[in-house]
Parts: sequence; structure tokens; C-alpha cells
Amino acid sequence: MKYGARNRITAKVTKVKKGDVMSQVELDVVGKATMASVLTTDSLKELGLKPGDKVQLIVKAIHVLVVKE
Amino acid sequence: MKYGARNRITAKVTKVKKGDVMSQVELDVVGKATMASVLTTDSLKELGLKPGDKVQLIVKAIHVLVVKE
Amino acid sequence: MKYGARNRITAKVTKVKKGDVMSQVELDVVGKATMASVLTTDSLKELGLKPGDKVQLIVKAIHVLVVKE
Amino acid sequence: MKYGARNRITAKVTKVKKGDVMSQVELDVVGKATMASVLTTDSLKELGLKPGDKVQLIVKAIHVLVVKE
Amino acid sequence: MKYGARNRITAKVTKVKKGDVMSQVELDVVGKATMASVLTTDSLKELGLKPGDKVQLIVKAIHVLVVKE
Amino acid sequence: MKYGARNRITAKVTKVKKGDVMSQVELDVVGKATMASVLTTDSLKELGLKPGDKVQLIVKAIHVLVVKE
Repeated sequence: MKYGARNRITAKVTKVKKGDVMSQVELDVVGKATMASVLTTDSLKELGLKPGDKVQLIVKAIHVLVVKE
Repeated sequence: MKYGARNRITAKVTKVKKGDVMSQVELDVVGKATMASVLTTDSLKELGLKPGDKVQLIVKAIHVLVVKE
Repeated sequence: MKYGARNRITAKVTKVKKGDVMSQVELDVVGKATMASVLTTDSLKELGLKPGDKVQLIVKAIHVLVVKE
Repeated sequence: MKYGARNRITAKVTKVKKGDVMSQVELDVVGKATMASVLTTDSLKELGLKPGDKVQLIVKAIHVLVVKE
Repeated sequence: MKYGARNRITAKVTKVKKGDVMSQVELDVVGKATMASVLTTDSLKELGLKPGDKVQLIVKAIHVLVVKE
Repeated sequence: MKYGARNRITAKVTKVKKGDVMSQVELDVVGKATMASVLTTDSLKELGLKPGDKVQLIVKAIHVLVVKE
């Protein structure tokens, strides 16, 4: 099984909130995780990112796909 | 500073790959992270998710927003 | 009318589920459809994609825009 | 293997275009496909969608995740 | 023509940057614009949003669909 | 505070609609706004975009991140 996505994080479900059309799942990341971001080169320059920089990664919950193997 | 997003992950840049229009940044997650996913209630039922379940979270790099505070 | 998106699929509504804030629409694709995906070149290499390969395309319903002409 | 997404489409790769950071893949949908969209209830009302309506589904290529099983 | 999306902004192209696979377009918004955001109710409560509050809206350029009518 | 996103729009909340899992916020853009879109070079060519062109920008509300500074 191979995914065409840079971020693949193992996590354990801690809470499920069922709604009428949409539902929400809370999880704890298991083990050490690495992540990747793709942004415009213009944004990269503005941020001046270089190895060692500490940043915040913001991801709307709607963009997180849950897969059960 | 408050973000209207469930996922806020502290990470350290490990690699930067600059392209013509888009660029890519690799990062290590710092400390323990929690995540959240929003999905349709139909998908939730299909997956049969409940606390304790181990899953994979797949996120395309393009959906990860980098913020430098 | 021209859209700045690679995927334009003609479909017929089969079911509507109205929720408080969000709603869900089910559809049947009409006719033959072609699709396109943009991914990082790193992911492309990992998947080793080449013409003729059979794959699954996964799209969260939230990313599908309905247009009525 | 279960995905927390409403759209799972079988497709065959027809063309690959490799770029510096991002790459593009073209595909033919195999067989009959069904799709789903999630939108605000406000948008649903504006569109006045009901079973039988013919619509266009627009999806940016970046939102299409390729999975190779 | 009706779009199943809350944000429809008239804009004038000011700059085009053509890349190998992806390209970038800069625009000026024409006239007065209104916008909408959908977020989890949990995030809404955390932000404590109420009419009159001034906020920043952040949108990755990849999520902006250009339509030429 | 620097965001790795091209679109940063100042806006004032006009209406809040709280739902079970997801909520919706309506806003007025404050002052003059500029925007940016990233699309495939194929789509750019199809649209034939050049400075001065008037277009519609369509953004699903789910892609708009609210930040309160």
C-alpha cells in the first residue's frame, strides 16, 4: 500500500464526536513523526525557512484523511 | 494568537527544497502531538472508529500551513 | 466558462442529505471521465507511477465543488 | 483497507509529467463511478439540488490522492 | 451559473508566473468582498468569535479556484 | 508572525452560525485585498490568463482559516 502523500502518521483514536453530516475524531500521534509542507516559493522566501528553524504547522481537521489498514 | 484549526503541531525544519513556483519543506515533529480529523458521519460509520483504534493519518503536504511566530 | 482546475466531471444527483451547517450530496458520474492528480515529485517516485498503472483515487467529499450551469 | 473519504475511484494512469517539486498525473476512470460532495447547507439551498439534477463537479488536481494497492 | 461555495470574489489579474507543472497568479480584489469560513465548533468556541470581531483570514493559494466567465 | 500562505485578508465577523460539529462564520473584507491562486500550468494555458483579465475566485468556506491575533 503506497500513498501519494508526504504525511503518513500513525495515531490512536482518543475520542469520537458524531454529528448529523460531519463527525470529528481526536487522536494521539504514536511514536516519532515527520511531516512535510508544500508552499509557494514566494512564501518560503518570506518565511526565510532553513534547517533548524522551529515552526508551527497548522492543518484544518478536514484535511486529515483517516485510513484503517 | 489563536488559530481556527484543530491541528497545531510544533516542528523543526530538517530540509528545504526550493522549486520554481512551489517549494517543499521537511520537518520533525517536536514533542508529543495530538491530531484531529473531520470526516463525514457516513465515513465514520464505515471505518467503525472507536477510542483505542490505531489508524494512519494521511495529509497531502499542500494542506500543511507553516507559521513562524 | 472555463475553470482553473483539471477535474471537471459531469454527474447526476442521486441523494441529498441536509444537515445543520454542512450537507452531503451523492452523485453518479455521467459518461466516461478522466481525472488528474498533482502530487510531490517525491511521492511520484515512491509510487513509481507509469502509464498503464491501475490506482485508487481518494478525494474527501469536502474537496468536491458542485457547479450548476 | 478502509478510507475515511467518500470518493474512491479506480483509474488507470495515462500520462506522467514530472516537475521540480510537484508532478502531475493524468488518468482514465475505470468502470462506473459514484461521487459525493460536502458543501454548506446555505450553498445547497442556493443550488436547489435535488435527485436527478445534472451538475459539474470541479476538483483541483491537488486534492486528488493517488493510492497504489 | 451557480457555485456550491460560499466565497465568490471578483478579481483582476495583476501578475502571472508560469512554472513547469504549477503556476501562480496574483490578483486585486475588485469592489467590496464578503467571505465565509467553516470551522469545527470546537475551534469556534476557542476563538470566541462574535459579530464585530476583526480577524485574519488565511488561505493557501492552492485552494483558490480561478473561473473565467 | 509570518504565514506560509499567499492570502492574508483582514475581515470583520458579521454572523456566526453554530452547528453540532461544524460551524460557519460570515465576514466582511476590510480595506483593499489582494489574492493569489496556484493552479497547474495546463489550467493556466487553458484559461489564457494575462494581467488585466477579470475573473471569479471561488473558495470553499472550509478552506478559509480564521486567525485571531
